[in-house]
Amino acid sequence: MKNEKFMSESMQYLKEDYSDLYEGIVQLNDNVFSGKVLDVKTQKLIAIAMVCGTSDDRAIKAQMINGMKTCDISAEEIIDVLRIVLLISGKPAFTKSLEILYSIVK
Amino acid sequence: MKNEKFMSESMQYLKEDYSDLYEGIVQLNDNVFSGKVLDVKTQKLIAIAMVCGTSDDRAIKAQMINGMKTCDISAEEIIDVLRIVLLISGKPAFTKSLEILYSIVK
Amino acid sequence: MKNEKFMSESMQYLKEDYSDLYEGIVQLNDNVFSGKVLDVKTQKLIAIAMVCGTSDDRAIKAQMINGMKTCDISAEEIIDVLRIVLLISGKPAFTKSLEILYSIVK
Amino acid sequence: MKNEKFMSESMQYLKEDYSDLYEGIVQLNDNVFSGKVLDVKTQKLIAIAMVCGTSDDRAIKAQMINGMKTCDISAEEIIDVLRIVLLISGKPAFTKSLEILYSIVK
Amino acid sequence: MKNEKFMSESMQYLKEDYSDLYEGIVQLNDNVFSGKVLDVKTQKLIAIAMVCGTSDDRAIKAQMINGMKTCDISAEEIIDVLRIVLLISGKPAFTKSLEILYSIVK
Amino acid sequence: MKNEKFMSESMQYLKEDYSDLYEGIVQLNDNVFSGKVLDVKTQKLIAIAMVCGTSDDRAIKAQMINGMKTCDISAEEIIDVLRIVLLISGKPAFTKSLEILYSIVK
Repeated sequence: MKNEKFMSESMQYLKEDYSDLYEGIVQLNDNVFSGKVLDVKTQKLIAIAMVCGTSDDRAIKAQMINGMKTCDISAEEIIDVLRIVLLISGKPAFTKSLEILYSIVK
Repeated sequence: MKNEKFMSESMQYLKEDYSDLYEGIVQLNDNVFSGKVLDVKTQKLIAIAMVCGTSDDRAIKAQMINGMKTCDISAEEIIDVLRIVLLISGKPAFTKSLEILYSIVK
Repeated sequence: MKNEKFMSESMQYLKEDYSDLYEGIVQLNDNVFSGKVLDVKTQKLIAIAMVCGTSDDRAIKAQMINGMKTCDISAEEIIDVLRIVLLISGKPAFTKSLEILYSIVK
Repeated sequence: MKNEKFMSESMQYLKEDYSDLYEGIVQLNDNVFSGKVLDVKTQKLIAIAMVCGTSDDRAIKAQMINGMKTCDISAEEIIDVLRIVLLISGKPAFTKSLEILYSIVK
Repeated sequence: MKNEKFMSESMQYLKEDYSDLYEGIVQLNDNVFSGKVLDVKTQKLIAIAMVCGTSDDRAIKAQMINGMKTCDISAEEIIDVLRIVLLISGKPAFTKSLEILYSIVK
Repeated sequence: MKNEKFMSESMQYLKEDYSDLYEGIVQLNDNVFSGKVLDVKTQKLIAIAMVCGTSDDRAIKAQMINGMKTCDISAEEIIDVLRIVLLISGKPAFTKSLEILYSIVK
């Protein structure tokens, strides 16, 4: 789970060039996805919803793929997440997220 | 669930003055919290997280109280939500949400 | 139109303390609400919609009152604006704006 | 008007796979662009302004094209909308929207 | 510097109830305000600017007061920050931040 | 400094087609980057931070390149800016900005 974005080239550069900052982010990530009370899958669904509320294509795609891979989140479950995105963040955020979902699963 | 904000005075006015718009919102709300795949409690946790990512005090408080009342969401579970708010939306959003949570439960 | 916020105490302080910045804002404001192609009332409706998409209570209230006073915008017209706020920015933004509208007109 | 995004492949998939959600969005859209008090063109100008205040390229472009096609909104009118975007949402939002406008009309 | 918000009641509760999360935030904060390349005062000016771009009154006020106390940031310097807020985030964000500044210094 | 975006094709079109609006933006820009109290380099660091808090790729890249060219801002200094972006705006904003930085300097 916590390794989600650490594959990216830029995070590799960060690890080499600014290891203190890299380590801080690893610790923050571990601290967040602790699965202490809520299970990690539920936390991951929440993370997907939150990035869908922004306009950050890359983050939306990365969170969806990561949640599908590491927690077996299904397209149907993400659609249920997107219903809430429609209500809370509006239709443009919903439509963008829907397109990203379909670009992954279709 | 769907009645969450319909107790408010302004929604009552809306129902009287613009019933078509009011009905549209009721339908949208029912459509969203369908509990089709994810259970309603998980959807409610997601809704709490999403409003915590904004600066809207009233909505954050309303969603937390509604989730606690209708789905038995605990303070511990909301803290686990706020861990993700910290990661995705940053510390000011986290701190504001934490203060609202403690204003409810302490 | 352009005097909307220049009554506020803080803008008065700004005028005295940083007159160059104050003058720049006056010019920007005049430049915006030029009524060149769209009439000023339509521009004002747009300004109301845009601030309703944020969480800034003060700005929402100020824009609504200013539009009502200077351009005879009605509550009914603002409701039609809020329909678009619901679609584009979601229900929390809609609900907050609705409450501010009713706090002005009821 | 209400068909604006229903041509998109992802909305077609949604219609097939989750028809209840699709129908809910159609109803919401009809409810919003009712043309009850404000005419639809004015509402469309407002929708353009609101999406310009976000960073969602696709939505900005879609709203501009839709408004031009269905309501004969001109580039000059959109420039007048963008003046307000500059004032309310700042220069990066203005510049991005300007580039999208010129990519359509030049 | 790093103690800025740890005086607040809710952060005290967090320390008692969820010490792992509290410690994680202390470490994150120390990691951020490292003063490694930029001096801490410059970093603090940046933090003030960034919260002014949101609608979070409490965070804006807290960051301004903290910067004034711990780094001798002056009202004149914050006005220079707010010039950038006007350009990047628009006039409502500027006006709100200006009012908060004057509520502190007048 | 003030010429940062005036090289772009769309700003050239604006200058020709809507010279009053173009001139207004030039004046606003000059007014902002006045270097009256804070030096222009510090203001530029602040502008970089503020656009990193949005999802606007183009603006993030433009501000970074402009700051590097006109004020000799280094990658190390931008990393120190991004530490604050992580704290205030969260990890997706940080990661996106980091990728843009590395796309420029690597």
